[in-house]
Amino acid sequence: MGAFVFDIQASEGQARTGVLRTPRGDIPTPAFMPVGTAGAVKALTMDQVRATGARIILGNTVHLMLRPGAERVARLGGLHRFGGWEGPILTDSGGFQVMSLSKLTRISEEAAVFASPIDGSRHILSPERSIQIQADLLGSDIVMQLDECVAWPATEARAAEALRLSARWGARGKAVFGERENQALFGIQQGSTFETLRRESSDRLLETGYDGYAIGGLAVGEGHEGMCEVLDYAPGLLPADRPRYLMGVGKPIDLVEAVARGVDMFDCVLPTRAGRHGQAWTWEGPVNLKSARLAEDESPLAADIDCVASNGYSKAYLHHLVKSQEILAQVMLSWHNLAFYQALMARMREAIVQGRFTAFRSAFRAGLRPATVQA
Amino acid sequence: MGAFVFDIQASEGQARTGVLRTPRGDIPTPAFMPVGTAGAVKALTMDQVRATGARIILGNTVHLMLRPGAERVARLGGLHRFGGWEGPILTDSGGFQVMSLSKLTRISEEAAVFASPIDGSRHILSPERSIQIQADLLGSDIVMQLDECVAWPATEARAAEALRLSARWGARGKAVFGERENQALFGIQQGSTFETLRRESSDRLLETGYDGYAIGGLAVGEGHEGMCEVLDYAPGLLPADRPRYLMGVGKPIDLVEAVARGVDMFDCVLPTRAGRHGQAWTWEGPVNLKSARLAEDESPLAADIDCVASNGYSKAYLHHLVKSQEILAQVMLSWHNLAFYQALMARMREAIVQGRFTAFRSAFRAGLRPATVQA
Repeated sequence: MGAFVFDIQASEGQARTGVLRTPRGDIPTPAFMPVGTAGAVKALTMDQVRATGARIILGNTVHLMLRPGAERVARLGGLHRFGGWEGPILTDSGGFQVMSLSKLTRISEEAAVFASPIDGSRHILSPERSIQIQADLLGSDIVMQLDECVAWPATEARAAEALRLSARWGARGKAVFGERENQALFGIQQGSTFETLRRESSDRLLETGYDGYAIGGLAVGEGHEGMCEVLDYAPGLLPADRPRYLMGVGKPIDLVEAVARGVDMFDCVLPTRAGRHGQAWTWEGPVNLKSARLAEDESPLAADIDCVASNGYSKAYLHHLVKSQEILAQVMLSWHNLAFYQALMARMREAIVQGRFTAFRSAFRAGLRPATVQA
Repeated sequence: MGAFVFDIQASEGQARTGVLRTPRGDIPTPAFMPVGTAGAVKALTMDQVRATGARIILGNTVHLMLRPGAERVARLGGLHRFGGWEGPILTDSGGFQVMSLSKLTRISEEAAVFASPIDGSRHILSPERSIQIQADLLGSDIVMQLDECVAWPATEARAAEALRLSARWGARGKAVFGERENQALFGIQQGSTFETLRRESSDRLLETGYDGYAIGGLAVGEGHEGMCEVLDYAPGLLPADRPRYLMGVGKPIDLVEAVARGVDMFDCVLPTRAGRHGQAWTWEGPVNLKSARLAEDESPLAADIDCVASNGYSKAYLHHLVKSQEILAQVMLSWHNLAFYQALMARMREAIVQGRFTAFRSAFRAGLRPATVQA
């Protein structure tokens, strides 16, 4: 695992806080990773992303291999230099994207074959090619194994088939990746909503051995309660001394409940996607900036968050930007939402250190301001 | 004119450089004002706009009176507070917009009556109401008189009619505006491409007396050469000791040629509009970021401009953002273009102070880097 030491500094129940150390910088956990699908976090500059407190961002293998092309990114100096992000980058392997992007995807033992949504051209993504793209061409810091992610609901037989293929693909990827000093490889637990399959998947991951472990196949339609049921056991099947990453999750309440169950890392397009559609997350819940009720609301989205999009403008102004279809509305709300997510993670870390995460969680569920909890 | 002292510090031929002092800050001239049509400079945060070196921005009376409404902006503390811009703001009177926004506009001696492009509702803009909106409701620092802007080409009779109505409207506006310590009122010269009419218009403006003088009715289709022909005489018809503002202009070469003819202030949507469409202005001329020739071009748009959009990213990355239709492409290119415009103004000011504006102008025309000129 090289430099990827994971220092757990405090815990409360299953929740834990610590630091994942990487050659490109420390990542305080629990951590939320903004999604930079195509080499850019949508609508935001990297300086704005950094200012929210984000210490690691995510890139997508499939998007980047299709455009501008992985070899091209390599010729341009790798993904960090290309996109202007000096901190650590985790790249998704492409397993989820080939499933969701294309109805023409065919999966065999050897590889996934899929059609580009850009121009229909045919592409092959094997476990080995995924590692090559991520580790050698993009220059990712945390590389994800290629997996097969099944849709929800799945039969137990279908879910078992997919997790076993994922396990074999993971081992093939590991063989190519080898041991590296400055890059980490994460395995992905699958098994849909079946505990026996999640257990089998975890056992197979441990046989291969990874630097960190992701929980895949959630946030695919099972809902908050369904996800929490899986998270009641799934993180505990993974090594306690390595980071656990819940892929593609989620809403603020999902993050709080997953942290309570032992998850350390997250990524999700929700804060930026919701922001582009006029929705802001606040301590009191989501706010629809299209609402005419806000037309003369002089309060900011979050006075206690140190981001100009959160504390520097009235809801009335943001409402006006949304109604006027200004690009700045998308910028401001994406920015605020990321700042809100980072503030939420920071408060969870602080609450765990101070032994009051249980109270924080109850208060958050009840829609109280954290200030109320701290009082 | 209150605080609006205009210090001309150096001149070379007709070109001059100085400072227009306002209660909200000094404006070095020649100055370019980014356009914040609806309370926002499109795609950019006010911090980004300020970082380019802009010291004054423009707002639009008609856009703001229609949405969110001038009285609403007033209730929310005025335009500066609403939009988060602490520096001076110049507001356009609405004359140009009622002409360009709506085919249903009817102009009488009393007022312009027009239909909202948002919902078709009927609105009346009189010279007095325009002043009230700008000076009292939005809280503008530099208020423009309401004028009638004729399309190009115009007959001499039509242009004469419009300039005379504009002169009467200007006097009515001045009567309402009165004398103010902390706000300035600018009159607008009209007269299309007819020197006798431009002279008549200027004489009428001087009879009323304003704090500054704009040249209106250009950049409406007459072309660069046609505009330069008018600018060969139009600025000289206006008082030499007051700022001269060329409305709605223009391309970089237009700015250089207008400064050479004695213009002090400009506004134009071109840098942000072109940026949203993938075009960047550089010292070597316009660059189309859609071009596949740039796919692996590692050079930035302008290494010598201190803006991350100008010097922090490769053309290859910006090309990728444009091709991927990332919002960030629109942000980055709008931002760079404004930074380029501000850099151009700063270099013109410096060249005039140093007595080498004539050389700068020749070199710029020839497409040389200013560095070459300075050497």
